[in-house]
Order: sequence, then C-alpha cells, then structure tokens
Amino acid sequence: MRITILGGGGFLGKKLAARLARDGSLGGKPITGLTLFDLAAPPAPSAPFPVQCLGGDVADPAAVAAAIPAGTEVVFHLAAVVSAAAEADYDLGMKVNLNGTLAVLQACRALGTKPRVIFTSSVASFGGGQDAVVPDDGRQVPTNSYGAQKAIGELLLQDATRKGFLDAVSIRLPTVMVRPGRPNKAASSFVSAILREPLLGLSTDCPVPPEFAVWICSPRSAMEWFLHAATMDTSAMGIDRGINPPGRSATVAKMLGALEAVAGHAAREKVGFVFDKEVFDIVVGWPAAFEAERARRLGFAEQESLEDLVRAFIEDDLAATKAERGL
Amino acid sequence: MRITILGGGGFLGKKLAARLARDGSLGGKPITGLTLFDLAAPPAPSAPFPVQCLGGDVADPAAVAAAIPAGTEVVFHLAAVVSAAAEADYDLGMKVNLNGTLAVLQACRALGTKPRVIFTSSVASFGGGQDAVVPDDGRQVPTNSYGAQKAIGELLLQDATRKGFLDAVSIRLPTVMVRPGRPNKAASSFVSAILREPLLGLSTDCPVPPEFAVWICSPRSAMEWFLHAATMDTSAMGIDRGINPPGRSATVAKMLGALEAVAGHAAREKVGFVFDKEVFDIVVGWPAAFEAERARRLGFAEQESLEDLVRAFIEDDLAATKAERGL
Repeated sequence: MRITILGGGGFLGKKLAARLARDGSLGGKPITGLTLFDLAAPPAPSAPFPVQCLGGDVADPAAVAAAIPAGTEVVFHLAAVVSAAAEADYDLGMKVNLNGTLAVLQACRALGTKPRVIFTSSVASFGGGQDAVVPDDGRQVPTNSYGAQKAIGELLLQDATRKGFLDAVSIRLPTVMVRPGRPNKAASSFVSAILREPLLGLSTDCPVPPEFAVWICSPRSAMEWFLHAATMDTSAMGIDRGINPPGRSATVAKMLGALEAVAGHAAREKVGFVFDKEVFDIVVGWPAAFEAERARRLGFAEQESLEDLVRAFIEDDLAATKAERGL
Repeated sequence: MRITILGGGGFLGKKLAARLARDGSLGGKPITGLTLFDLAAPPAPSAPFPVQCLGGDVADPAAVAAAIPAGTEVVFHLAAVVSAAAEADYDLGMKVNLNGTLAVLQACRALGTKPRVIFTSSVASFGGGQDAVVPDDGRQVPTNSYGAQKAIGELLLQDATRKGFLDAVSIRLPTVMVRPGRPNKAASSFVSAILREPLLGLSTDCPVPPEFAVWICSPRSAMEWFLHAATMDTSAMGIDRGINPPGRSATVAKMLGALEAVAGHAAREKVGFVFDKEVFDIVVGWPAAFEAERARRLGFAEQESLEDLVRAFIEDDLAATKAERGL
C-alpha cells in the first residue's frame, strides 16, 4: 500500500509518518511506499519501506500530482495555513487552504483509482461559542477565514466522493494539545503553551480567563482517528463525510488542575493570566463542546483523560522539545 | 446608484433588469447606471438610465471586473450552470459556479467600497428529501455538485462579508415556477413544464408521481426577494448571510389542481405521468419544505397562492412564450 502525507513536515504529519514507519503496515496491509510532502521536503523517518520526501507548494497542481503517484491508496491531507495566519493574510489562506485542496482533489481524481483521502478540517469551521454543544448535524457558520476554508474543503471533498473521484473522510479536529516545540501562529497556541511551557520550567501567560472552555484532543487521539479514518468502511457514512470526533471539553482551570496533578504545584504556578483581546476574539467563536455520537458509532476512539494527556506529552515529546529549544 | 446583474441574460436576470428599468430607482435612490453581463451580451431594456450590456465568461476575473465598475453599489450575482448541467459536466460547473463566484468576490473586493452582493443560492444545496422540513439552522449536505458549489459560494461570500470586502445576502431560491420559454437542463425543468406546456395548449410528461412535493416560488416572489435583499439593513443578519426565503411546499397534484382551477379541466388533462429515474434521483434529494421563519422576521415577503402564481404566468409571460416558440 502506497501512502502520501501532505503537510508531512508539520507537527501531526511528522508524528503520523513516524507511526506508519513504526507500524510498517496500515489496516493489515504492508506499506510499500510513503511520500512526505511539505513546503520544504520533510525529514524521512527510518522505515521498513521506501520514503520519498518532496518540497513544494500544495496550491501547485503539478507539485501535488507528483506527491500522489499512481498506486497511492491513502492520502492524508494535513497541509494548511493555520487560523491566525489565515486571518492575517486572507490571500495566503485562500491559496493554501482552498486552492491546495482543489489541487489535492484533482490529483486524486486523475489517478482514477478512488484513493482514500483523510482531510483535517477543524472545530474552527463552527460558530456557536462557549455555550454551544454542537450536535452531529450542527451547521458550520465559520467566524474566521480558516474555518470557512476548511468547511469549503469538506464540501469539495464530499462532492468529489459522491462523484466517485476519491473516498474522503474529513475529521474536524479539536484544538490539539499538547503541541511540542514553540508557540505558533494558531490563535489556539496558548492551549498547549499553558501546559508545555511549565513542563519546560518556563513561565507563560494565558490570554483567556480560567473558566474559558476549549474542545480539545491529544496528538495520540488524533493519530488513532487518522488511522481509523484511513482504514474504516466508509459506506456506513453515506454522503456525509464530515466527522466530529469524540474530543473532550475542558476549561483552562481543569487543564491547569491536570498539570498540577501530574507535575506539581510549582508547575501550575508558572501560568499567569494576561487577557489578549485579539486572541480571545477569534477563539471565543469556537464551540466548546460537541455531541460526537456519530463518530463513536463509526468507531472513532474516545479521548483519554487530561492527566493521561499531560503524561503522554512528557513521554512522547518533552525531551525532544527541550532539545529543540536548547533547554 | 450603479447596479450590475451578472447572468443578466437569463430568465430571472432579464426580469430583474426590466423591473429596475420600470422602477428607475432602488430603495428610494435613483438608478444612474445598469450593467448587464452574461455569456452573450444581454439585450438592454428601455430604461431611464444608461444600460451597458457586456458578454463574457464569469470565471474570467478581467471580464467580471469590467462588469463591476467603480461606483457599483449593488451586484446581483445570478450567473450559474444549473443543476443537471453541473452534474453532467463537473468541470464546467466548478468553473462557472466556483471560479465565477471567486471572480465576483475579487472584483467587489477590489472596489474597496463594500458593495451589496445578492447571490442566488439554491434549495439544491440541502439534502433531506421529501420528508424534510428544513429548519433555519439546517445544515447543507448537498446531494449534487450544483448544490455543493452553491453552498461553497455562500461560505466564500459570507467570509468576504465578515472581512469587510463586500456585503452579501445569499438567497437559497426554491424551484422557480412557472419559467417561460422552453424546457431547460435543470433537473427541476418539469416543475414549470407541467403548468406552462398545458397553458400553451401542449401535452407534457411529468417525470415524478403526483404526490411528489417541491419547495417552489414564483418569479414575482423572487423579484421581491431580490429587491428586498438589495435594500434591507443587513446588520440584523449578523455573520450568517444565508436566507431560506418563505416559498411554498406543493405537490405535483396541488399544482395541477391550481392549473385546473385557473385554466380548466382540458389543460389539466394535457399532463401525463412517465417516470424518469435520472431526473427523480436528483430532485428526490431536495427537501420539500422549509421553516423560513428567519426570512419572515427579516422582512422577506410571503409566496402567493398557486392559483395566483398560475395567473401571474398568464399575465406576465404567456404571450411572450407563445411568440418565442411560434405558437
């Protein structure tokens, strides 16, 4: 089985490549080749199969077609300009998030073999805000350009699925925490920072109040969902290819409680509160909870507890993050 | 006030141009210029203001920019490839319905003056089928490419509104009946044909059974909704720029009853039933009823009765249709 990861150099793309390299197979079928594609050619994990690493623009149809060679059975389309960046630069967001997805659609269609496409959509495609509990048939009324572009990508891939060009599953990812590395341009960057920075021994400011709730998932859950979406029987989904996976609704106070439970009071004390209106105005529009019953019925795994999530970051990413940041 | 109609050569575009020419003003402001744009330059109505008629491709950004000159305050974006044609030719539908709307967005944005844009979306952007009564926050899960492209257009224009590039109102038009002229490539062409053809003295076959229900509106209602959307205070809409207008849910049997009430038994007897699976499979996915409470609150006028709708066709369009078809 040949697999492509678009956005293979990003946080989730690298974790997914490492997981596939470790497993050597997907859904019981041996992996025979992996192509990693990102703006700069991503590093290749050591793997029991050939890994091809390509650099290019996801909005360039020729570059994307080269990254999805004949015989590709599964495409993970994780390439995107994130929320605050897409809000700050509308044209860049449209280019990468809209034209990029169109290029992926056309490259997959050109294969003529209906590859499975796993698309990372986002909680940011919903409006609703703090009080919302989004039902499975909740309408996407995005309050930001990133969310609008993701909702459009879902519609494109859903229609392409109905037309028989490909076989899409769009996972509307919650805010993924704890992200390793450094703060990034996502408006939700603080959600990881308030756990990661203290675990690195650093102080950080939270830009929203303690009672602010976020719909979150761990990188480990995201990986389980990606692999399930790549191997599940999609016929049970019918025409509707968007999935609200079973993440977890958590307040900042609860996250800090989990931090304290795992890493002690001193870690908790590293987090201060400095309100940031620009960040708040973006994230306040994202719903803080989802029903996610359809995803459970379709076999998507439950998110682990916040304490387990903190421990997983320590196990999986803390050492590498320390090394990367020279700490 | 300068106004542009994209798709100004189509059925609704021509009616709208004639209405504006007759009124001479919009929302109490005199019209100072009207640009009509279509694939072939549309005919100019006689009007008390200058009318510019342009031919071009709505997917060509330069052609669209020329059709939306500086000072344009209102753009009616009616240009589209209709349902069955977009289903038969995916690439043509994507070009006109997606790239066309992107070109309109960019042309309006380039003005820097935030023009009002009235976009004709469609009931075809919803799934649900015969049993659905779509609530105002009903989710769009299109069962055809035309509907997907319309839902995408709504998302694009809604986000462009939020960004301050333009000021959009998307009207999800019911199936418009009675259309003058000849049958066209819309899957819903029969909805008009079963009234129009008998009124022309011609026989016609209905491809769906008598109990089949359709969410319909008249050309007169569509005009009222367009003019209201062009002049209403949009601040009451908030971020959500999609409108389910107050159309009417009617079975084929009821439509034929109205035909008989207005035009007699002989007219009713001109309609036979010959099931057409290809047409049925498209239209069966469209919901047959909507709540439309939000549109009523926002001042969109109620659809007239079926009998009045039949009489309006006789008054407005029967003679011209007879002449056009040499009857």
